[in-house]
Amino acid sequence: MTVSQIDEEVAKLLELKVQLGGDESRHQFTLKTAKGTRDYNPKQMAIREKVFNTIISCFKRHGAENIDTPVFELKETLTGKYGEDSKYDLTVSFKPTVLDPTPSQVPFARYLAMNKVTNIKRYHIAKVYRRDNPAMTRGRYREFYQCDFDIAGQYDPMIPDAECLKIVHEILSELELGDFRIKVNDRRILDGMFAVCGVPDDKFRTICSTVDKLDKMSWEDVRSEMVKEKGLSEEAADQIGQYVSLQGGMDLAERLLQDAKMSQSKQACAGLTDMKQLFSYLQLFQVTDKVVFDLSLARGLDYYTGVIYEAILTQTGPVPVAAAQNGAGEKAEEGVSVGSVAGGGRYDGLVGMFDPKGRKVPCVGVSIGIERVFSIMEQKAEASAEKVRTTETQVMVASAQKNLLEERLRLTAELWNAGIKAEVMYKKNPKLLSQLQHCEDSGIPLVAILGEQELKDGVVKLRTVHSREEIDVSRAKLVEEIKRRTLDV
Amino acid sequence: MTVSQIDEEVAKLLELKVQLGGDESRHQFTLKTAKGTRDYNPKQMAIREKVFNTIISCFKRHGAENIDTPVFELKETLTGKYGEDSKYDLTVSFKPTVLDPTPSQVPFARYLAMNKVTNIKRYHIAKVYRRDNPAMTRGRYREFYQCDFDIAGQYDPMIPDAECLKIVHEILSELELGDFRIKVNDRRILDGMFAVCGVPDDKFRTICSTVDKLDKMSWEDVRSEMVKEKGLSEEAADQIGQYVSLQGGMDLAERLLQDAKMSQSKQACAGLTDMKQLFSYLQLFQVTDKVVFDLSLARGLDYYTGVIYEAILTQTGPVPVAAAQNGAGEKAEEGVSVGSVAGGGRYDGLVGMFDPKGRKVPCVGVSIGIERVFSIMEQKAEASAEKVRTTETQVMVASAQKNLLEERLRLTAELWNAGIKAEVMYKKNPKLLSQLQHCEDSGIPLVAILGEQELKDGVVKLRTVHSREEIDVSRAKLVEEIKRRTLDV
Repeated sequence: MTVSQIDEEVAKLLELKVQLGGDESRHQFTLKTAKGTRDYNPKQMAIREKVFNTIISCFKRHGAENIDTPVFELKETLTGKYGEDSKYDLTVSFKPTVLDPTPSQVPFARYLAMNKVTNIKRYHIAKVYRRDNPAMTRGRYREFYQCDFDIAGQYDPMIPDAECLKIVHEILSELELGDFRIKVNDRRILDGMFAVCGVPDDKFRTICSTVDKLDKMSWEDVRSEMVKEKGLSEEAADQIGQYVSLQGGMDLAERLLQDAKMSQSKQACAGLTDMKQLFSYLQLFQVTDKVVFDLSLARGLDYYTGVIYEAILTQTGPVPVAAAQNGAGEKAEEGVSVGSVAGGGRYDGLVGMFDPKGRKVPCVGVSIGIERVFSIMEQKAEASAEKVRTTETQVMVASAQKNLLEERLRLTAELWNAGIKAEVMYKKNPKLLSQLQHCEDSGIPLVAILGEQELKDGVVKLRTVHSREEIDVSRAKLVEEIKRRTLDV
Repeated sequence: MTVSQIDEEVAKLLELKVQLGGDESRHQFTLKTAKGTRDYNPKQMAIREKVFNTIISCFKRHGAENIDTPVFELKETLTGKYGEDSKYDLTVSFKPTVLDPTPSQVPFARYLAMNKVTNIKRYHIAKVYRRDNPAMTRGRYREFYQCDFDIAGQYDPMIPDAECLKIVHEILSELELGDFRIKVNDRRILDGMFAVCGVPDDKFRTICSTVDKLDKMSWEDVRSEMVKEKGLSEEAADQIGQYVSLQGGMDLAERLLQDAKMSQSKQACAGLTDMKQLFSYLQLFQVTDKVVFDLSLARGLDYYTGVIYEAILTQTGPVPVAAAQNGAGEKAEEGVSVGSVAGGGRYDGLVGMFDPKGRKVPCVGVSIGIERVFSIMEQKAEASAEKVRTTETQVMVASAQKNLLEERLRLTAELWNAGIKAEVMYKKNPKLLSQLQHCEDSGIPLVAILGEQELKDGVVKLRTVHSREEIDVSRAKLVEEIKRRTLDV
């Protein structure tokens, strides 16, 4: 069925419905959106646009390109099950459908391998979809945005990694979400720590995922889970406990490099040396005020191979409902944890898994928890007295007198042609009051008022809405004057 | 299954795959995107962004708000089948699924009725999906953009309608797609014409859809279809033939108002009177050079109730492959016809069908055939010698000497903090030549070169890439100087 056939069918059906007199059945149906979806009204869209602009400007400031990959990927790409005669069915415990949201690094890695791209700095912001049960009360929608920035390529250590943290710092500062902290750790430091604490190799992952719960569970509960549920020795658990309580900066990395136990792990030493290097770059970038080397940070995704990080809001003010509820029992949309608004890390192995020849392309990236940012911004707007403008209109072309529609339209077109954002009422003879009221309601700062006298004099009465001040401006200078008075619009 | 669980599973599977040594099976799998989908590379995205910016700027210039509705709607909304005990199954000949693209006016009308919005000027640009068989050779993808602008509300006749045409004129002019024409007609004029030509009432729609083919079939073939396939009398067909060959402006509307036959139809007269009014507004908007009142225009969608229009490109230059192929046998994505890049009309009855009390909200709108615009722009970029920039970077921070990585990073951060779009190579000691080459490749206009001497003197050597001219600029004035030299970036 083609789109135009669908169009035709819909129209036919709707017409048929009218003919049938749909009125009786109409009353029984409540209009609604599909389960797990919602509309965004102009105010919400204005907030989203502001967030997008801030984030995209930052990505562009750092020289990023934009790419777009499809919303669904082949099952083979998602599961890594290539080839028909694969002996192992890797999908047994995991039945993705084309519609489930995938960790956004997967399509990116597929893109790089498929197009043989060996270095790129890119961002990607797109709606994605989930199939599993939506839970809107907990802010889980079937339709939501993912926002990613990644740097792929073989470079000298920790320089792109530091830039990712700089970007998180810039974005969170500019969005004015309140104070924040960026926790940093390294997969190699975690693995080395587990090794020197006596965690058996086959328990690394499961112990790691318990440590990951430290942001929402007490150490006692985490310890208990490790020992009672996961069978770790009490001694190992306590040693882990000592390390994961540590937080610091370059100094902590230096101290741990001297630590009797830690220094026995080659992996840990490599991670700690890089951590030192990272902090030296972060100092140059002037972002160490917010960045903490935190040994308890253990992000879930197993494809991270080096540095990992997560940004959390530390404000004690009112926590947005969606964000708070989201954090109650599970991770948020983008795989970030409680209070978290951004997260990421280095994943040097993923592209190689997709490349036919296994060629590696080292990658480091960050996902911004943009849906959470939206809901925080919406709550802030809700709480604030300041009105959110939903248009950018600079001037309303109005008249107090009758029969001036044509003159109003002519002037409006002149303004549009000069690049001025202008509105005019679609009425032959609107009341001046209703024209002014529209400006008040929608925050239009200026009114260009036409009357017989003004037309005769070749001027326009330019009124500033908030001060009610009016001055005559010659037609020839009107565009310039509007621009001058609305530089910030 | 939650997102984080999926993340974990994917990571586990990918790791398992590596353990299994996926190399043998790897060779048998060709990396690809799902059927009917494609990636967009940075160059394509840069072109898309330019198109979006042009279009959105125009919508904002006209005071439009932005709303977003979900990508899928309830079946009841699509089919108008409300209520459980509906006697008629309206879905027999039409089985939409949540994923089929719907005419974009339907979710908009549902939004208005559901939120009791009685007037709004809005735009909506979003990806939509189709389920039917993709045919990529004909430019039919499963994933594509729709772009809509609509004005809803009870206003004086033809003012918002004229603004829609003004918007099409502005957008097509600014996109520089070549010369274009906007055909205008009115549903009432068409219906009146059919009536006075002796078309039986129950044949209006089918005859209308045959007339709609005049843009790709000769009159002889259209006449033959009406007479032989649809059983219209030869006399009626010939009378239609006389009318549908007419094109003009306000003069034609006036002439037809005097036409012996046409003037017998009340409907036609109402349409013709409005057409005159429309052209008077179009004159004020200075767009009559491109607008033609064309009685052969008969857009497919049956929910149009008044004015209808369609913009076509008239250039004789190379027609983009996708567009040409698209037009070969069917309508394009957005329900627009051959060569068509925009279309729309007035649909005063749609919202009332969704409103529980049947309250009407008159609407007029336009869809921009944005996928076709993209493919035309891509072809133009392909054919042009001018390079498409994929980043907006203003300056590259470089060095000719070794051991200046830290100084480069420090300066880069200073520039970022001042809002300058800056890049730096992620190498400790990159060659100057490779730094300059990167600027050439990606169109970065300036290079800020640091050396021992410059650091000592508190200056930066600012190099203009295209002229190779270099000047020393004091550190304090660098930001200002870069801004001055890259005003257009």
